[in-house]
Order: sequence, then structure tokens, then C-alpha cells
Amino acid sequence: MFDSGIGGLTVAAALRQLLPAEDIFYIGDTARVPYGGKSAATIERYSMEISGLLLAEEAKLIVVACNTASALAVPRLQETLRVPVLGVILPGARAAVKATRSRRVGVIGTRATIYSRAYERAIQDLDPEIQVLSQECPLLVPLIEEGWLDDPVSDQVIGRYLDQLVKDQIDTLVLGCTHYPLLRQSIKRFVGPQITLVDSADNCALAVKDLLRKQKLAAPKTNLGRLRVAVTDASTGFLHVAEKALGLQVGDVQLRTVQSGTPN
Amino acid sequence: MFDSGIGGLTVAAALRQLLPAEDIFYIGDTARVPYGGKSAATIERYSMEISGLLLAEEAKLIVVACNTASALAVPRLQETLRVPVLGVILPGARAAVKATRSRRVGVIGTRATIYSRAYERAIQDLDPEIQVLSQECPLLVPLIEEGWLDDPVSDQVIGRYLDQLVKDQIDTLVLGCTHYPLLRQSIKRFVGPQITLVDSADNCALAVKDLLRKQKLAAPKTNLGRLRVAVTDASTGFLHVAEKALGLQVGDVQLRTVQSGTPN
Repeated sequence: MFDSGIGGLTVAAALRQLLPAEDIFYIGDTARVPYGGKSAATIERYSMEISGLLLAEEAKLIVVACNTASALAVPRLQETLRVPVLGVILPGARAAVKATRSRRVGVIGTRATIYSRAYERAIQDLDPEIQVLSQECPLLVPLIEEGWLDDPVSDQVIGRYLDQLVKDQIDTLVLGCTHYPLLRQSIKRFVGPQITLVDSADNCALAVKDLLRKQKLAAPKTNLGRLRVAVTDASTGFLHVAEKALGLQVGDVQLRTVQSGTPN
Repeated sequence: MFDSGIGGLTVAAALRQLLPAEDIFYIGDTARVPYGGKSAATIERYSMEISGLLLAEEAKLIVVACNTASALAVPRLQETLRVPVLGVILPGARAAVKATRSRRVGVIGTRATIYSRAYERAIQDLDPEIQVLSQECPLLVPLIEEGWLDDPVSDQVIGRYLDQLVKDQIDTLVLGCTHYPLLRQSIKRFVGPQITLVDSADNCALAVKDLLRKQKLAAPKTNLGRLRVAVTDASTGFLHVAEKALGLQVGDVQLRTVQSGTPN
């Protein structure tokens, strides 16, 4: 699995819990993080390059644990790579469709994710009656990486971003970025108990389980799966925030160099 | 000149004003922005690669208009490249030494700039009696790129970061990141009139003028210099914030691909 950085460890945590027999190799493209403000062409190129590293590790399945890359690069990866590729958009969309009663769903994410309208399309493919209201939230990732997870400044930024969605009476909010679950408490405080928060992590793990079963790729149940983490830049300050908040045992982190060019 | 992104346009504006005869080619490495949280090895590699693009444009002089790259990559660039290289650290340090009366100077910057202690060393090389107090401010660049330049949230974040420096009775504060001049008003409000704010832009332009004269590289005075701007990623939302705040005519922006490998 890969992410633009370390935020995708929220998805790794869900996978570890549901599929303890599977070996997970996680790579965070910290040398080029963040993807969320960059163009579709750049995000697609980076996703192809990082996938090359995963193929070199003999991945049997690639999970794109980054909403931005899922929104913009998964179709290209699915077309090009020789292994199945799963993103986090469809699992998140399914969770939203299941949760909404009023059929008014809010989606928050990075600028690139929101501009792509990937959630909107995925949700409306599942139920064309659902109204999707979207809001880009560029400051949330930096606030989370600074570790201001339960902080009045984060509360105010969240209030600024979410105010209109609440006024528009959504009943379900998709946390459309793998970092955002780390701000769940603060978001919950602002939107109140009437709005259901959904994220992709658990649903993505279910989709992975399903696909491994269907394609007969699942590891033997007796296997003791492990999580290995690699990054493309050695500077991993945020890793400690993520480890602590997720209760995830990360251990030694490897450093990898990303190659320019496309895998096949 | 290059920067990790668009913040270095504050330096471009100063150069345009002081040296209107010079042609400036500015490239922002927006495909890999920000540099400020990344490791020294990555910042050095990116700086070498971007300098290769400038040499291909037949640059007679390279200005590193990015504090992070100046702090971590200028020595290597000076060693390796065949044209003179000027960073923004030494000009900023000179401005601070000139401004301080109490010899207590504060420096704010990205995490990588602050960890490098480049300002501390440059200031104390000029005057070993000066005490330098440093503070990393990772959220300021994202706030500026979001365009929250005169905003209560930015005021609070600035208060949080600068509180200790003010208590420690600095009389001069170095804005050690090319983005920060865009938050000058808000910073000024917090630190009050007793503390002098200095940035590298004007002093860097003076250093460029001096070097061009000494090395007989200055353009003829009758030349009508122009500013061309290129980026490595097409997504340039922040460009409009910078253009507006700086009153800079940027015109068409080119898209360039950065090559892996090192120039010489």
C-alpha cells in the first residue's frame, strides 16, 4: 500500500486489525508529500512511480491508501499494472451511502480530491438521488502533522471549513483524506451527534478482504502477518504523531529512493 | 532563481525593483513543494536538479530564493556549479546584525531551516556576541498559501509560535522563510513596534547587485529586464495570492519537468 505520506497508516491500522495474516508493505512518498495541492498529471505520475516500488516488493495487490491518489490515479493504475489495485474512494462512498438517511452527504478532502469530484461521482453512481456537498480543507493536513489534534486553533479552522456544510443540513460527512480520522474528536465536537462521520479505512479493509478471497490471494490463516513501513524521505516527524494516535507498532522505518519513469 | 514554490517571488519583487535591467528566470518546484519539512539529503538533491534547469537557461548567476534550500544546499551548489550561487541566509543575517541593539535576535523558519542552525551560524560569524533564539513555524506556509493573510486564525498561530521569543526579549526578528513577509502585518501586530522585522529580500537584492558589479556580469543599463516564471507542477492556486500581495506582474507561467540526476 502507498500514501503520499504517513496519513495512510489509518488504513494500515484497519487492515492489520481485519487481516492479521497478511503481510503489509507500506510506503509513504514523504519526499514529495503532500499530493493534495498538486495537479492531476503530477499525482498520476507519482502514483505510477511509487507503485513500481511496490511491484518490486512482489505485491499481490496494491492499496492506494491516499484519497488524492485514489481520486486521480486509480483508473490509470488499474489499466497499467499487472496486479489488482484498490483505492479508498469507493469504500468511502459505500460507507456514506449506507449511513445517510436524508440523502444529503458532505465530503471534505484536499483541494485535488475535491476538484476531481471523485466522491461525488462514486456516491451518485451508487444512488443518484443523493446530494453531495463538497468542501476542500487544505489546512487540516498541516494541522494534523503539527500534532495539534485537540486544539482550539484546529477547532476554529474546522468550524470555518464545515460551517456551510452543517447549515446545508448534511446528515453524513465523509472524511475524504486519510489524515482526517486523527481530527475525528474535534470534527465531532463541531458537527454534533446528528451528523455521522464516515471514513474509508474500515470499508477499505473489507474491500481488500473480499478481493483477496475472490481472487484466491489470501494468506494462510496461520500466517503471522507483519507491517513494514518505508518512506522516500528520512524526515518523519509526523510518524510519531501517527504511531501514538493509532496505537500502531511501526518499528524500524526503511528509506527508499523513488525512481522516475513508469512501471509495467 | 529558484524556490521550492512561489514564496520566493518576494525576493523576485525586490530584485525587479533594484535591478530592472536584469532578466530573471524564476522557477518554483511546485511539484515537490514544500521543502521545509524534508531531510537535508532530499533538499540538496532537489536543489541540484532545479539548478540544472537554470543552467540550461544559461543563468549567469543563481539566486536560491528559498531559505530552506539556502540553509541546506548552498554550500554544495557553490562547490558544484559553474556559476556563482547566492542564498538568502547571509543577506538576512546581515540585516539582523545591522538591526539589533540588544543583541538578542529571533529567527523563525521552516523545520528544516531551524534545525540546520544556518541563521544562527551566519549571525554569530558576523558577531559572536549576539544571542540567537530560534522557532520553527510549520503552519505559517500553509496558512499563507490558503490566503489567510489577515485573519484571526493566523493571528493565533503566530501568537503561539512567537510568544516565547517575545518573552525572551528579542529586539529583532528574522522572517526566515520567503513566504513570511506576506504575514508581516499580522506578525507586527503580535510582536509590537519594539521588535524590528527583517527579511532577506532587500538585502539579497543588494548582494546580487554587488556580485554582478564585481564579476562584471551586470546587464547594460538600457536593457529592459523581464521576469519569466516557471513551475514544475501546473497547480498554481497560490500564485494569485502572491501576485496580488506583491503587486508583481507574472504573466504566463511555463510548466517545466524536473530531471532526476545532477547538473554540472
